[in-house]
Amino acid sequence: MRVGELAKRSGVPVPTIKYYLREGLLPAGVLTSPNQAHYDEEHLRRLKLVRALMEVGGLSIATVREVLTAIDTRDESLHHKLGAVQEAISQPGPAELDPLAIKDVQEFFGRHGQTECVDVTESNVTHMLAAALSAARSLGHNDFRDLLDPYLEGLRIIAQADLEYVVRHTSPDDVIEAMVVGTLMGDTVLKAVRRLAHAQVSGEVLSDRIVPGEGV
Amino acid sequence: MRVGELAKRSGVPVPTIKYYLREGLLPAGVLTSPNQAHYDEEHLRRLKLVRALMEVGGLSIATVREVLTAIDTRDESLHHKLGAVQEAISQPGPAELDPLAIKDVQEFFGRHGQTECVDVTESNVTHMLAAALSAARSLGHNDFRDLLDPYLEGLRIIAQADLEYVVRHTSPDDVIEAMVVGTLMGDTVLKAVRRLAHAQVSGEVLSDRIVPGEGV
Repeated sequence: MRVGELAKRSGVPVPTIKYYLREGLLPAGVLTSPNQAHYDEEHLRRLKLVRALMEVGGLSIATVREVLTAIDTRDESLHHKLGAVQEAISQPGPAELDPLAIKDVQEFFGRHGQTECVDVTESNVTHMLAAALSAARSLGHNDFRDLLDPYLEGLRIIAQADLEYVVRHTSPDDVIEAMVVGTLMGDTVLKAVRRLAHAQVSGEVLSDRIVPGEGV
Repeated sequence: MRVGELAKRSGVPVPTIKYYLREGLLPAGVLTSPNQAHYDEEHLRRLKLVRALMEVGGLSIATVREVLTAIDTRDESLHHKLGAVQEAISQPGPAELDPLAIKDVQEFFGRHGQTECVDVTESNVTHMLAAALSAARSLGHNDFRDLLDPYLEGLRIIAQADLEYVVRHTSPDDVIEAMVVGTLMGDTVLKAVRRLAHAQVSGEVLSDRIVPGEGV
């Protein structure tokens, strides 16, 4: 198809497609004449993925490029590829970390046998965790780390469902996209469903409580 | 304390503090002379909260203002206040939604008795969920909705831990901050710990798998 049809089928305007082409987010089409290129279903698929990463995942152009690189790297086990995608979509957070928060993270990872991940500066994921605990500590929430274990307990149920989902999508193209969708769309879905879980549980526990010290 | 000491104790530069004052994120100090104001521990506390919301939560000035408004509204039950904070920190996502994704969300909420939330355009949370499912559908992942139930199951464990955490912090100032910390820092912690859960579960399930169709 020509770029006009690609725009029509994807809902992405032609100038935006050309921008993605220049930024390397979309592979070039096959030239059919000096100023006309031909695009196929793979281009359409990739274009939809780029849009989803940017619009729902909220990723920057640079981060989308990193994710696509991780996706396109061949000869990696799924386990490693998943790790690379997750690193790419994890924002490291502010540079200044509370040493006690770093210790919390190290102890947490140690408790769960992830001894290779204890250098929080080496991974965006551990850095993100240490940054959140640092921020909580700066607000006096030193015991926020106590939530890490129940979080992991709940998230293992979720990870099991995610992985089963990925395994069900095992054609070469699908499995990679399913990982990205499962991770990034999953983060958003998780955030939203967490609100519902809060509403359910707090409805059960807190609905009659008023902020203490404030009269009704 | 004077603004210089507030800057020193919070680690936030004076010009930034003045910017927050102009933007209404920080209440004005008490004037002790025509061009000198006095700030107290409440200002320091609020300033740390604003920084945490922006740096770790990644919120914009406008969203921080909404969150603070929700926090400062008096005479609301905790349950309602929690809802208001969660609305404020939920990005609604792109406007165009797949009608089938809206149906998925409505069915999901219906299954869990949240019949009052079925208009996805009325709540940022439901809109965010529908947007993520729309994006997944646009990539051919029509069965991504099957993850909603296991997600809720895992997140109820997490919500229970969150709520217990909030209930433990019951002084009038603490309980409100604990809600914000629990929700927003919690989102970040959740994202990071989810990576660990994925690593654990995928290490168990997938470590020997190679992307199908690619030779080793």
